Amino acid sequence: MRYSNYPFKTRKDISSQEVSKSAIFLQKAGFFEKNLAGIYSTLPFGLNVSKKIENIIRKNLNKHGALELILNTLQDPKIWEKSGRFDDEVIDVWFKTELKNKTVLGLANTHEEPITDLVSKFLKSYKDLPIALYQFQTKLRNELRAKNGILRTREFVMKDLYTFNKDESSLDNIYEIYKQAYVDIFNELGVGNDTFITFASGGSFCKYSHEFQLLSETGEDTIYVDFDKKIAINKEVYNDEVINELGLDKNNLVERKSIEVANIFKLKTIYSEPLKCNFADEDNKNQFVYMGCYGIGIGRTLASIVEVHNDDNGIIWPKDIAPYQIHLVNIGENEFAESLYNELLDAGYEVLWDDRDVRPGVKFTDCDLIGNPLRVVVSSRLKESNQFELKYRNSSDVHILSKEELLSKIQDFYAN
Amino acid sequence: MRYSNYPFKTRKDISSQEVSKSAIFLQKAGFFEKNLAGIYSTLPFGLNVSKKIENIIRKNLNKHGALELILNTLQDPKIWEKSGRFDDEVIDVWFKTELKNKTVLGLANTHEEPITDLVSKFLKSYKDLPIALYQFQTKLRNELRAKNGILRTREFVMKDLYTFNKDESSLDNIYEIYKQAYVDIFNELGVGNDTFITFASGGSFCKYSHEFQLLSETGEDTIYVDFDKKIAINKEVYNDEVINELGLDKNNLVERKSIEVANIFKLKTIYSEPLKCNFADEDNKNQFVYMGCYGIGIGRTLASIVEVHNDDNGIIWPKDIAPYQIHLVNIGENEFAESLYNELLDAGYEVLWDDRDVRPGVKFTDCDLIGNPLRVVVSSRLKESNQFELKYRNSSDVHILSKEELLSKIQDFYAN
Repeated sequence: MRYSNYPFKTRKDISSQEVSKSAIFLQKAGFFEKNLAGIYSTLPFGLNVSKKIENIIRKNLNKHGALELILNTLQDPKIWEKSGRFDDEVIDVWFKTELKNKTVLGLANTHEEPITDLVSKFLKSYKDLPIALYQFQTKLRNELRAKNGILRTREFVMKDLYTFNKDESSLDNIYEIYKQAYVDIFNELGVGNDTFITFASGGSFCKYSHEFQLLSETGEDTIYVDFDKKIAINKEVYNDEVINELGLDKNNLVERKSIEVANIFKLKTIYSEPLKCNFADEDNKNQFVYMGCYGIGIGRTLASIVEVHNDDNGIIWPKDIAPYQIHLVNIGENEFAESLYNELLDAGYEVLWDDRDVRPGVKFTDCDLIGNPLRVVVSSRLKESNQFELKYRNSSDVHILSKEELLSKIQDFYAN
Repeated sequence: MRYSNYPFKTRKDISSQEVSKSAIFLQKAGFFEKNLAGIYSTLPFGLNVSKKIENIIRKNLNKHGALELILNTLQDPKIWEKSGRFDDEVIDVWFKTELKNKTVLGLANTHEEPITDLVSKFLKSYKDLPIALYQFQTKLRNELRAKNGILRTREFVMKDLYTFNKDESSLDNIYEIYKQAYVDIFNELGVGNDTFITFASGGSFCKYSHEFQLLSETGEDTIYVDFDKKIAINKEVYNDEVINELGLDKNNLVERKSIEVANIFKLKTIYSEPLKCNFADEDNKNQFVYMGCYGIGIGRTLASIVEVHNDDNGIIWPKDIAPYQIHLVNIGENEFAESLYNELLDAGYEVLWDDRDVRPGVKFTDCDLIGNPLRVVVSSRLKESNQFELKYRNSSDVHILSKEELLSKIQDFYAN
């Protein structure tokens, strides 16, 4: 797109209340806009990135047979009363509202109860299992304080997956499948090397849950990482017994700060029992279904990636989730730039062309702030020698290239 | 996909409270599931169709330069107090909730105020205009009664587009562009012939708004249609003066029932004035921006299409929005069916294969209920003569074809 047509251009000043780097860069660069503490609108650049993240997740879940649906924001209290979780003392981030007839409804902050209730209406036989269902759905959470920018908000899209199996060993199997799918997802998102499967508390119903923790000095969590084994332990369960049980050596564990970008749980029958989600097994006996749940917050993942992929000048997007693949800057030579712009679009690239009539320095500054992976420059001086300038956002080297070399370098970059 | 893996199979019995045909068929066939009056979950088949509808809309808006974003569900009362619309007496379908500190928030039932506020933060000069922004966002509406199935719900995804222009004549131009885009959308959705641009009340700020009304005997609206001119008048503004003004002849106007599937409004400066959304014009004078808004409810459009495209046996999907393009039924001959299934998938078709071990009659009944455009049957008898059966959902003719003829007929069907 032509940057002159983008309504949400870069800004120098945003609210001084923002402390996290990601919230500052993402707002300065026109990806998000704050309305109230913890409530942000997703602007077109932000939506571009969010959709790419969602599509990477979707692909890696569909591959294993998971099906996508959409549950609701408005929640029937009757379903939540069965598990005892409609109470504000039990879940302390409920938003509630009411119908005209004064019936109180909840606003969904998670979806274990409604998905269990839904499956209970259809599930009959062990032959119907396994089932894996996921959604990208807006969660509303009444956080007491929302002070961490886009990393912890009151309204956010979460991908939540729920699995249903006939017994514990089938649950164990499917859990490993989707744990590995999460590893694949974070690899594709470009942060696989810095993301660690982390043993964390499993709450009251299983020994451990697994978190996916992205190393970041600005993270709220503390974990102990074994870099060789690519595994970590959350501080909340870090003790000699756990270290031994996991076969780890204290001397190999390094304390680091990190951001929880995803978590997965074995729920077993904790929701299927109260919500009566059962089926007839091979002997025609009624059994409660074994469940797992697997969450990734889209905005939090996006912001976490910015938190660790940036420099003083702005964002450095991993190539598969950047809002645009190429940022084209012209210094004069509008028509010449336009023909390259059209050529790149025709070749199937996503191009942001800064076609504004402003000083080159302004264009370069904005280009670094927005953070697309490749910068291509067109100018009169270069045009004379029939050349183009290419710069990678994550390097300071500048390459002066012929058209053929330029196209070949771009193709190589996106082929790998 | 293999139908044996679909968790939400067809059902004979659903709530007897449902009166609309679309709600009955869409639930019996596993597209939606009711939670509470006016609150439905979207099951995978329903999401398939919704996404196809969304993509047709998206394509036709992007073509004209509109940009997609996502605003919020949680609404800051301060913004709405500027227009006077936070009051439950002014908008009678508000759901409200509150933060821990007792600040009351609204839950968005529409987004004129937040989009105007957002644009006001960025808009500086007439050079920044026109702007066209849209979203697919969940609206929550506290309807007193929700008795019309999926046609009028308390929670639904709406595509809402907002345009911003420098003056009234630019608004008039962009309004015609997106009015035509809507015509294109309903044509692509397969209901263009039965959808009429309908003059309706423009409220307090302009003479007319335009509704897109789909003819349906079960519709709640009454309109007067000129079939030759492809235009209609809503009963609410139907009188001699309006008929004359539109250059129509009473004798050519036919009374019909219909469903409002979309509406578009010229808002002019009714929101930009209270929300101070202004810009510097060519003479550096401050001017309020001229706005338009354009809404299509996704679930309502989907349900309306079912309301008019069905027979006694079930849904008859228009081909570009069907959940699957081909419904494959095997009578025995599993392996033979599987190889055709894979061949069709490899050719790029979306195939639902009913691979269950149930009576042929059950498969045919479910096939008609679900309503995909093409039914292909594989059986031992056909296999002997190396033949396949093809039936179009909207015809009772059955074609016995060679593999080559079958593939060619399928290709022809989807090429047109």
